[in-house]
Amino acid sequence: MTQPQKRLTYESVRMGVDYYPEHWEEALWEEDVSLMQKSGVAVVRIGEFAWSRMEPRDGEFDFGWLDRAIDLFGRYGIDVVIGTPTHTPPRWLTDKHPDVLPVFPDGSVYYPGVRGHRCFNSRSLRRYGERLIDKLAERYAGHPAVIGWQTDNEFSMLDSQSPQAAEDFRDWAYRKYGTLDNLNREWGTVVWSGEYSDWSEITPPLGGSPYQNPSFLLDFARFQWDTVADFQNGQIAAIRKHCPNHFITHNFHSYPQRLDLYKVGEALDFASFDYYPNTSPDKAATSPYSGALSLDVTRGVKRKNFWIMEQLSGSPGAWMPMWRMPQPGYIRAYAWQAIARGADTVVHFRWRSAPIGAEQFWHGLIDHSSVPGRRLAEFAQTSEEVRRLAPLLEGTAPEAQVAILMSHEQLEALRIQKQTDNFDYYENIKEYHRALTKLGIGCDVIDWRQPLEGYRVVIAPNLYLLDEEAAERLCRFAADGGTLLLTARTGVKNMNNVCVMRPLPGLLSDCAGVTVREYDPLGSDIVRLDTEEGGQFACSQWADILDPVEGERTEVLARYGGHVFFAGEAAVTRHEFGRGETYYLGTHPEEDYLRSLLLRIAMQRGLACAEGLPAGVQISVRGGDSGSYLFVLNLGREARKFRLGGIYAEAVRGEGLLSGERPGSELELPAYGVEIFRL
Amino acid sequence: MTQPQKRLTYESVRMGVDYYPEHWEEALWEEDVSLMQKSGVAVVRIGEFAWSRMEPRDGEFDFGWLDRAIDLFGRYGIDVVIGTPTHTPPRWLTDKHPDVLPVFPDGSVYYPGVRGHRCFNSRSLRRYGERLIDKLAERYAGHPAVIGWQTDNEFSMLDSQSPQAAEDFRDWAYRKYGTLDNLNREWGTVVWSGEYSDWSEITPPLGGSPYQNPSFLLDFARFQWDTVADFQNGQIAAIRKHCPNHFITHNFHSYPQRLDLYKVGEALDFASFDYYPNTSPDKAATSPYSGALSLDVTRGVKRKNFWIMEQLSGSPGAWMPMWRMPQPGYIRAYAWQAIARGADTVVHFRWRSAPIGAEQFWHGLIDHSSVPGRRLAEFAQTSEEVRRLAPLLEGTAPEAQVAILMSHEQLEALRIQKQTDNFDYYENIKEYHRALTKLGIGCDVIDWRQPLEGYRVVIAPNLYLLDEEAAERLCRFAADGGTLLLTARTGVKNMNNVCVMRPLPGLLSDCAGVTVREYDPLGSDIVRLDTEEGGQFACSQWADILDPVEGERTEVLARYGGHVFFAGEAAVTRHEFGRGETYYLGTHPEEDYLRSLLLRIAMQRGLACAEGLPAGVQISVRGGDSGSYLFVLNLGREARKFRLGGIYAEAVRGEGLLSGERPGSELELPAYGVEIFRL
Amino acid sequence: MTQPQKRLTYESVRMGVDYYPEHWEEALWEEDVSLMQKSGVAVVRIGEFAWSRMEPRDGEFDFGWLDRAIDLFGRYGIDVVIGTPTHTPPRWLTDKHPDVLPVFPDGSVYYPGVRGHRCFNSRSLRRYGERLIDKLAERYAGHPAVIGWQTDNEFSMLDSQSPQAAEDFRDWAYRKYGTLDNLNREWGTVVWSGEYSDWSEITPPLGGSPYQNPSFLLDFARFQWDTVADFQNGQIAAIRKHCPNHFITHNFHSYPQRLDLYKVGEALDFASFDYYPNTSPDKAATSPYSGALSLDVTRGVKRKNFWIMEQLSGSPGAWMPMWRMPQPGYIRAYAWQAIARGADTVVHFRWRSAPIGAEQFWHGLIDHSSVPGRRLAEFAQTSEEVRRLAPLLEGTAPEAQVAILMSHEQLEALRIQKQTDNFDYYENIKEYHRALTKLGIGCDVIDWRQPLEGYRVVIAPNLYLLDEEAAERLCRFAADGGTLLLTARTGVKNMNNVCVMRPLPGLLSDCAGVTVREYDPLGSDIVRLDTEEGGQFACSQWADILDPVEGERTEVLARYGGHVFFAGEAAVTRHEFGRGETYYLGTHPEEDYLRSLLLRIAMQRGLACAEGLPAGVQISVRGGDSGSYLFVLNLGREARKFRLGGIYAEAVRGEGLLSGERPGSELELPAYGVEIFRL
Repeated sequence: MTQPQKRLTYESVRMGVDYYPEHWEEALWEEDVSLMQKSGVAVVRIGEFAWSRMEPRDGEFDFGWLDRAIDLFGRYGIDVVIGTPTHTPPRWLTDKHPDVLPVFPDGSVYYPGVRGHRCFNSRSLRRYGERLIDKLAERYAGHPAVIGWQTDNEFSMLDSQSPQAAEDFRDWAYRKYGTLDNLNREWGTVVWSGEYSDWSEITPPLGGSPYQNPSFLLDFARFQWDTVADFQNGQIAAIRKHCPNHFITHNFHSYPQRLDLYKVGEALDFASFDYYPNTSPDKAATSPYSGALSLDVTRGVKRKNFWIMEQLSGSPGAWMPMWRMPQPGYIRAYAWQAIARGADTVVHFRWRSAPIGAEQFWHGLIDHSSVPGRRLAEFAQTSEEVRRLAPLLEGTAPEAQVAILMSHEQLEALRIQKQTDNFDYYENIKEYHRALTKLGIGCDVIDWRQPLEGYRVVIAPNLYLLDEEAAERLCRFAADGGTLLLTARTGVKNMNNVCVMRPLPGLLSDCAGVTVREYDPLGSDIVRLDTEEGGQFACSQWADILDPVEGERTEVLARYGGHVFFAGEAAVTRHEFGRGETYYLGTHPEEDYLRSLLLRIAMQRGLACAEGLPAGVQISVRGGDSGSYLFVLNLGREARKFRLGGIYAEAVRGEGLLSGERPGSELELPAYGVEIFRL
Repeated sequence: MTQPQKRLTYESVRMGVDYYPEHWEEALWEEDVSLMQKSGVAVVRIGEFAWSRMEPRDGEFDFGWLDRAIDLFGRYGIDVVIGTPTHTPPRWLTDKHPDVLPVFPDGSVYYPGVRGHRCFNSRSLRRYGERLIDKLAERYAGHPAVIGWQTDNEFSMLDSQSPQAAEDFRDWAYRKYGTLDNLNREWGTVVWSGEYSDWSEITPPLGGSPYQNPSFLLDFARFQWDTVADFQNGQIAAIRKHCPNHFITHNFHSYPQRLDLYKVGEALDFASFDYYPNTSPDKAATSPYSGALSLDVTRGVKRKNFWIMEQLSGSPGAWMPMWRMPQPGYIRAYAWQAIARGADTVVHFRWRSAPIGAEQFWHGLIDHSSVPGRRLAEFAQTSEEVRRLAPLLEGTAPEAQVAILMSHEQLEALRIQKQTDNFDYYENIKEYHRALTKLGIGCDVIDWRQPLEGYRVVIAPNLYLLDEEAAERLCRFAADGGTLLLTARTGVKNMNNVCVMRPLPGLLSDCAGVTVREYDPLGSDIVRLDTEEGGQFACSQWADILDPVEGERTEVLARYGGHVFFAGEAAVTRHEFGRGETYYLGTHPEEDYLRSLLLRIAMQRGLACAEGLPAGVQISVRGGDSGSYLFVLNLGREARKFRLGGIYAEAVRGEGLLSGERPGSELELPAYGVEIFRL
Repeated sequence: MTQPQKRLTYESVRMGVDYYPEHWEEALWEEDVSLMQKSGVAVVRIGEFAWSRMEPRDGEFDFGWLDRAIDLFGRYGIDVVIGTPTHTPPRWLTDKHPDVLPVFPDGSVYYPGVRGHRCFNSRSLRRYGERLIDKLAERYAGHPAVIGWQTDNEFSMLDSQSPQAAEDFRDWAYRKYGTLDNLNREWGTVVWSGEYSDWSEITPPLGGSPYQNPSFLLDFARFQWDTVADFQNGQIAAIRKHCPNHFITHNFHSYPQRLDLYKVGEALDFASFDYYPNTSPDKAATSPYSGALSLDVTRGVKRKNFWIMEQLSGSPGAWMPMWRMPQPGYIRAYAWQAIARGADTVVHFRWRSAPIGAEQFWHGLIDHSSVPGRRLAEFAQTSEEVRRLAPLLEGTAPEAQVAILMSHEQLEALRIQKQTDNFDYYENIKEYHRALTKLGIGCDVIDWRQPLEGYRVVIAPNLYLLDEEAAERLCRFAADGGTLLLTARTGVKNMNNVCVMRPLPGLLSDCAGVTVREYDPLGSDIVRLDTEEGGQFACSQWADILDPVEGERTEVLARYGGHVFFAGEAAVTRHEFGRGETYYLGTHPEEDYLRSLLLRIAMQRGLACAEGLPAGVQISVRGGDSGSYLFVLNLGREARKFRLGGIYAEAVRGEGLLSGERPGSELELPAYGVEIFRL
């Protein structure tokens, strides 16, 4: 291996696996690790569920087995990431300190038996968890094989309503609002006589009804985000004290998470993601695109490259019946997709399927039989390719001139009050992202609070909550020459989830150059959308009836058609604003329209794009000091033959870095085929 | 305004809005009220959720803001109805007296946060509620703007199983049955060893399983009806003590209610209804008819005209995603439909959409933006029309020669034991009512215990429970010359929900002139129905196999057809009984058959009807000392052109009172068009 | 009646009814019993819900009414079976000893009100129940009318999590594993830090999540099976003490039951079943076959003839809306189906529909009206036929050369971890059984632990859990000349629900002559199955990719086809093993394929079969010392005309024992027609 010294360990491009030494007879370990080495495993993650083995009884620590495992990896040149095991408190702890257990919104306790049975507000959990992490960090700070840490596992919103959570929420509210008068006013509790007359009356949303005061519910979500971030900060402090040179990451999963990724990501060195693209033929048309979005979202958490900490290795099955088994090429193609979109290290879950416990059918690279098979071979092939190209790829990262803004506050607020039956904030983001991806236009997906410098186009779907700061930043972006795209349900509320008493899109009306005269919540009903060029499309979800602001250069791009009472009214507009422009989409058009609109913008703004990509084919570019590389992936179930034109035409006449072959005028990729070209 | 003095204030025909002064900065009030006056608002309802503002702390009353609001309305000539705010007990009360909170059948508490968090059995709620109402009534008894009161808000069955509810149910049962022996015998508790050996064993239906003793479950429902009526009586007494000249009403909602409307309506001066006709295009074919039924049901509560206390003003959205926005004409047309069917005052919910709280998207006449728009303009136009026609309409009321009998005891008993998968008592009433409405035949919908004098035709679907008194009254109606229509599942049980040991239709066999030999619970299966004239229809739900009683003049009108084993057996019969007749429908035929049968009856009994009404078009007549008026409403989404024949032919050659125009030989109404003619 | 003395009372072939004297005025009894006698009732079951009448108050027993009822039956020559009433503890008992009540997995209590409100672990229930049974048994031991006992009623899994259940489970686990180290190792609790550090930490599956450790969950099910068996053993001991000559049975119901029938059946003299074949036309194609399976399953519980303790007499309706009424012939045909498959006594539920209680619409032979009708007449006709043929049928039993293995451990384990979305163990058994039944091949359905001697073919679907003993027995069966049929998901786990680390089908690989290279969990996706003869079929659920073991005589019978990556790979194989053969089906083929495969086997193994049976027509043979009888039943809704060939050709030229007629070359049966021939 010829890794340049300048790269930090976590910026290496390489492959790994998740391993659970505690699940296997120790006699099996070396055989496993030796085969890992042969298969190209460079990193393992271990330990994240092993509390009961690290501390079998209160204060009795046993790290002997862990020492032996880590030493073994070290001997075989495999780096180790340790997961802190707070996701699974042991029974002696929950028995001794039941406050460790979350309390569900219906008042029932989340008992041990599954996993994730830990209330982030529990003082016992923090005390015991940090004590163990302190010991771990102290012990492995200097171990040459250990390179970093994963906090807990797959954080998610638990809505724990334990007494401690209630108490902490009261404190949080007190710190935010200072007085009950402020709180009552900002939350609008006067409605339904909900005014609090004493701080003790403030509780989590008891009963768990989703139909409570939306200002209160949004703040309860924010409180939980702060709680998880604070819980993680305690762990991070314990690790950094001993291991200042180790990295710390967390493995996010299953987007959209209600938990604010950006808040939880703040203190991390980089983000990780657990990537399980759906293997069902029914999902074959959408799964490669929602997967692409998940990767872009993960990259956006820290606006830098990331890890895959768990990557699909076989059919998952545990909470749900088993999925289809990944077919040949699937494991390799999706590993390359992750790398193409900014993953550096890709760790596959898991080495071998577990014979015990509730995830027996969450298949690893090797089946229960322990006979190495097709999937391990494919992994080994991929590892070999990754190892070969790593020197080129290290230090490169995806580059984008387009950003989609993502906001967990919007997501949560629009979950609390679902606008119409098919209105879904994250699904809307998916559709914009998919339209870009099908056009071969790379984009970043970033927190809506991030600076926008460097982008030419910013797409900001459904900015339902808005404040002066955000509005001003977006206006400035457009005024300074950017293309800003806004959609229906923008500027509806202030940040306390209270409706604004001004025409929509509220604080962004000037920038958009339109006001919403009235609206019709279409839901699943379909309405015709007529473009000024004579095209007819479908739209649904919502219909803002737009009035261009008088005296402004606002152009109507599409109008409602058909039999609705607002037929002929403006639906989509473009406003020349300062040195830039703002598009406003008052409805949710079908993908064909989105694609044609985004293509028009791409042409006008000079964005690199690739018209005519076949279904399932995705391209990405990673660039850096070592050059730029074009990834071409066929994530579909059919072989595809196609041309890449424009700026990519020349690149694909060069040698394919994986196959070593030069394609002719047409690229031909089998199902799950991958090729990489120097750009 | 030229209102004759003879009319009570609540019999005025006029328009109003619901307003929440406590939701807005006081600075905004006068602007609002002034605009209300300009828009034709004659009445407002206020106060029904404002307990925490009227009594911010235990015993500390603050009516200053309410004084100022009511004074303001008075200054602008707008009458005020005050809602008692017991629907939303304040947090200090639930905190101090948790017995105020209902307990769900699964044992969980209904916490504050939504609304309706009050157990009607709670002594604290009654004590505190009546204390507040006493203060309110005393204070506003003499205020010239205040004309009446609404009790609580939208009563419904809560199935509260609080300890006090259990104790009260025990008492209720003791008062009804006297001894456990009686109770055990009447409820048939011997089944499954359910015999009570001590009064303390009597509880609400713990666990909430719907599969418990049906006699017990029906009595538990009756107990709840009595509880709500008693709860309301406490409020009424407090009001009447101070305000003998004010009216008292309650706003019913969302039929069918499990709560017995007639029981709760007893002590009211008149009934009110909250009317939200569904705006979805998917419901366009049925919504105008189920709406018409709701209005007729409300009129039947007191057998007199009523109010709409909340009328659709915009898309609702809170518990559910937002509905479609009412299209132009919708608000006006449905206001006129309400008046056509006996509403005098129509109060729109609400003035302006709330920027705060959980009902932010339950849209008012004015949007959050506070910019008056299309919907307010339509309301103002309607107000102007109503003001113009009020002198004609005041004192008139819908008149009917047909009655449909409705019974909450049947509804509840048939809910407890659903007969077949598509058997639904209220849906069956809907179908009879819709068939009449499509024929232009007006009808009353009245409590099945009401006297039947004055009707020519009485339709009594599914009189499942029966006693001698009811049977005797129905027999007498037919014997005295009326046309009585009975259906399957009549006379199955006594009033204790116990099956009778005699051939069906039990106590009504003689009157019906048939007995049920056996039956087949068809459910959703479709069976053919062959009329004696050779027509073929479909029927479902149920099939009674009928034996005409020997020696009686019982004519078979339709028989089962097709491949069922009872093909050829009698399904529908007509029995000449005394000076009248009894129809018995042993099955549930499709609407086409119902319409043809009802048309035949209408012809024979000389009922006014209007064959050939287009879909969505409804007619109604209001008559009184000032004359009779024919309302013609197009509640469909398409313009309609049609003739009205028979007794209406001449009327519609006269001047339309709304447009001032005379239609030609054909009436032409746009979508949501309305016209009124002198009859 | 000419019953030979050698038959035990419970081996008589005859008809009965279920009767509840306590539900009726005593004045009605004799009229009822007299009509029963006229209708051919030879047996009644009584008492199983009458605890509150037998012991109205703690320790106060009242058997007077029961004496009078039993005496009355005796006078009319009707035998009596007494049900122990522990299914419905009286209110005084649950009030005094709330530990009698089960606790649901969500922590809520199963209150009285329905039935079955008894925790099998409750010490109070056992104490009070056995005290009452002791009194009953002592009292009726010598009564000439009483012939036997039914324990409790319709045992099922309750998953009670009462404190006593938790304590008993701890003990059970201690007795099984001895040490926590053993238990932790065998259950694999190390996963997710689930290791128990103290016995007190062992609880039932709190929270009730189905996604817990599968080894633990399977043992909790086994614990419950043992609990119910033990609970029943207490009752049986109390009965046998006084009534050594009475039989004891239990009425099983609603297969598949999660409760282990074989475990609970061990201590019984024979099994009984409550048989309610679905009357819906929608189920007409499947219900006769799933009914046939239920009967064969019941016969397999004790591998001998059985009783029907409750047989459909009219539309059921209670938990669910009413079903369709059985059409003419239905009651008779299904009674004969039961007898054809090994029922001796058939007791119809119930004499008359109950006017009281929650099962009012579970119709008896007589309607509430008490007017005897069509259904009673059909019952009486059937009774008369049964009485006439009883001398021939008594002592005969169904004989089979094929066995399907059934296992409650597999059922439970595959319920705990559903393999794919349409993978269902019992449904799979149904499909094999239906294919056999459509071919006219009789089979036994027996516990998978039973000896296999005497069978030519053994079908063992989805033997997911396996141990050496079972594997060895199956291998021996094949090696000794049997035909063994195995399917996908065989040998996956050991008996502790832990996956085995060897190629599948694990311990049966040698016997099957194949190993599973890898698999694809197809779920509902359809894949093509190509036979070596060129046939094309569909398969789903699962796809094992099979490698014939080298050097073995393993023949590939079918391969996967179409576009899957494993097209061309072996799916179905046949292995010559010792003197026999093993078929392995790596997938779940459609029924057509199953039928063609089973027909091929039947031909090769010389099994009697009847190709070309029309849909709904079933044949069965009962044989014994008195000869062999062929039952031909048309359980379909259409009349059928068909030939029976092969070994049945001659029999059906003889006289039909029911009609006394000789059919021509073709048999002709009306809908629900039945005929019986001497073989």
